[in-house]
Amino acid sequence: MKTETLYQSLRLPNQPDTKLMLLVLDGIGDIATVETEFLTPLEAANTPNLDELAKASAMGRMTPVAPGITPGSGPGHLGLFGYDPLEYEVGRGVIEALGLGIELKPGDVAARANFCTLDAKGIVTDRRAGRIATEVNETLCAKLQKVKKVGNAEVIIRPGKSHRFVVVFRGKALEGPLTDSDPHREGLPIKKVEAAVKSSKAKEAAAIVNEFYAKALPLLEKERPANGFLLRGIAHLPKIPTFEERFGLKAGVIAAYPMYKGLAQLIGMQKLEGTNTTQEEFEKYLAEHANYNYFFIHVKGTDMAGEDGNFAQKVAVIEEVDRALPTLLQKKPMVLAITGDHSTPVPMKSHSWHPQPVMIHGPVSGSDKLDRFTETNANRGSLGVFKSRNLIRYMLANAKLFDKFGA
Amino acid sequence: MKTETLYQSLRLPNQPDTKLMLLVLDGIGDIATVETEFLTPLEAANTPNLDELAKASAMGRMTPVAPGITPGSGPGHLGLFGYDPLEYEVGRGVIEALGLGIELKPGDVAARANFCTLDAKGIVTDRRAGRIATEVNETLCAKLQKVKKVGNAEVIIRPGKSHRFVVVFRGKALEGPLTDSDPHREGLPIKKVEAAVKSSKAKEAAAIVNEFYAKALPLLEKERPANGFLLRGIAHLPKIPTFEERFGLKAGVIAAYPMYKGLAQLIGMQKLEGTNTTQEEFEKYLAEHANYNYFFIHVKGTDMAGEDGNFAQKVAVIEEVDRALPTLLQKKPMVLAITGDHSTPVPMKSHSWHPQPVMIHGPVSGSDKLDRFTETNANRGSLGVFKSRNLIRYMLANAKLFDKFGA
Repeated sequence: MKTETLYQSLRLPNQPDTKLMLLVLDGIGDIATVETEFLTPLEAANTPNLDELAKASAMGRMTPVAPGITPGSGPGHLGLFGYDPLEYEVGRGVIEALGLGIELKPGDVAARANFCTLDAKGIVTDRRAGRIATEVNETLCAKLQKVKKVGNAEVIIRPGKSHRFVVVFRGKALEGPLTDSDPHREGLPIKKVEAAVKSSKAKEAAAIVNEFYAKALPLLEKERPANGFLLRGIAHLPKIPTFEERFGLKAGVIAAYPMYKGLAQLIGMQKLEGTNTTQEEFEKYLAEHANYNYFFIHVKGTDMAGEDGNFAQKVAVIEEVDRALPTLLQKKPMVLAITGDHSTPVPMKSHSWHPQPVMIHGPVSGSDKLDRFTETNANRGSLGVFKSRNLIRYMLANAKLFDKFGA
Repeated sequence: MKTETLYQSLRLPNQPDTKLMLLVLDGIGDIATVETEFLTPLEAANTPNLDELAKASAMGRMTPVAPGITPGSGPGHLGLFGYDPLEYEVGRGVIEALGLGIELKPGDVAARANFCTLDAKGIVTDRRAGRIATEVNETLCAKLQKVKKVGNAEVIIRPGKSHRFVVVFRGKALEGPLTDSDPHREGLPIKKVEAAVKSSKAKEAAAIVNEFYAKALPLLEKERPANGFLLRGIAHLPKIPTFEERFGLKAGVIAAYPMYKGLAQLIGMQKLEGTNTTQEEFEKYLAEHANYNYFFIHVKGTDMAGEDGNFAQKVAVIEEVDRALPTLLQKKPMVLAITGDHSTPVPMKSHSWHPQPVMIHGPVSGSDKLDRFTETNANRGSLGVFKSRNLIRYMLANAKLFDKFGA
């Protein structure tokens, strides 16, 4: 029997009190180096509420994709949701589109886009067009949006921050992946887009994208410095079984940033809107408590501080979460897992492959006798180092939602 | 090369002193919770002899089947014996039959059975017939046993505890699995049994089971409350390569309970009879020392205490094993592995998925510098968290029975 079949066959019905929560402190994992006096932000932070939970939790470390592999947010979260990121690949264009709140449909192809600067010969001289202001970006996107249709495909353009935007081609049955128009370095012209796989639907999509370029580039002709744009990660919405189909849990997502809501929506989680701070996120959970039996709450600040190499800020975000924690615990979920989607070590200023610490707290999680939630303690936990896509299995087990296998 | 091929190709001949022992304290793993003052039975027990061994052992944790999966005794032990429980599935009927001491043969099909209550229309009104007393069960089984033969198949009926019994159909070449006659909830009639796979032998078996119903149900007609019975997990003895074929070790099993002897016999281990207490089991080992190079000793009490939620009793069984240990050590096996087939945490009163602690003691096991055999120490051991079916590989390695791979 396959393991997946085993899990499906042993799944018991939800109980009235079935309430699982995945609290993601994005990029929480860190590394201890001499520059930080061998402390990590989790170690340096003052976290009385987390400590209290930690004392009655099981801990471990999780490999998001495979040893040594640094994941982006897409694969990082898919793993946490119980999907093998190598089985379910989500193109970057799709992730960006989700990040800007575009609701993708089957037949759509989405591209990450950058405004860029071209010289008189059409050579890319600045791939980011001097990182133009978001307001300029918005004006330029409105211009580009004059192109409403290419062939049979509707064109949807949405500005992001600075020079970034997204283009979605809404056809009947378009498919990716396509090659990038981005030459990936300055000094080269914009590349023609081609199908990256043998597929007539991808060929059709490539033709549409190239036709879009022909129509759209002239609209920017007189702009400076952003007189061109580059497309990357052009892909379609993959077919993924929903979280409810796969794990039998009705799930809601609480996140401030669109990308994480988008990733959760990819697998059918319900978007619970209107939160900015962690405190607001936890209050939203209290308000929606009765409506779902799985909550995914996403805290972005830890990752941003890690990316900025800002140790004090990462500590501050952790402490902010800790201060808000009593709100969440007013309606303590039966099973609470706290972790990251990957590590974002301050000394690296980037995502990394270092297995992220995880703690699982619940009535039968047991206690690993570790008094704080830190990387070093997680190394000593009962869960060892495991693939993050197994986290949901441990959460379901802790909620007593699996029958015994065999007599 | 496949890993299995690698292991086979590197296997060295046994030595005159090749002596491996697997000592299973059934359900030994536990969890620390606030109710037990964050102690586990292994931590609370006074175990000077185990402690002495622990100091010179390697430790770790084992996942019996897959993350979050709680195994029954069948899959739990198959893993310990080095078999993937998902590759070698043993039907529940087979395990129950083994548990009642029935020696199954190829061609047999075995079913778990419950006495149940039927109303005048044949609807199941109580799937457990009010959990009748074992003595009533025995009388009813004797009645049913009047059916000695159905078609070409001999019928063997053996009472268990309360409302449970086993029916074995001994044909020439019967096969399972069959669908259950148990409707799995009250308010429905007994279901006709069918082959669950495309197989003429399973079809034949289904016909025999249905004919058995026709003959046997009338015998219970006047009984109250147990005027019917339900069959589940109807399966044949699976073909499993013997332990000796697979690992090159002549193995004996010392166990007080029939199920564990039965499971070991499934893979050709020799049954060494006549023991009840752990002390007797260890004495049996001394007596049989020269005749085998692998011993599987099974201690049941830890699991029973766990199932009963009896902390003190689980501690007492562990201490009893500890007191008997010097007897075993009179002829210290070259490699001694002590573990459970799974965890049976006292606070859960049931088997669980929590990886069970394991220690391997031998001349080259090394020491993890851990002074006691406990769950928390096992978390810090050199073996990490690994699948229990790899335990036999570590045991063989510790007995120096694998050649080097490559130059």
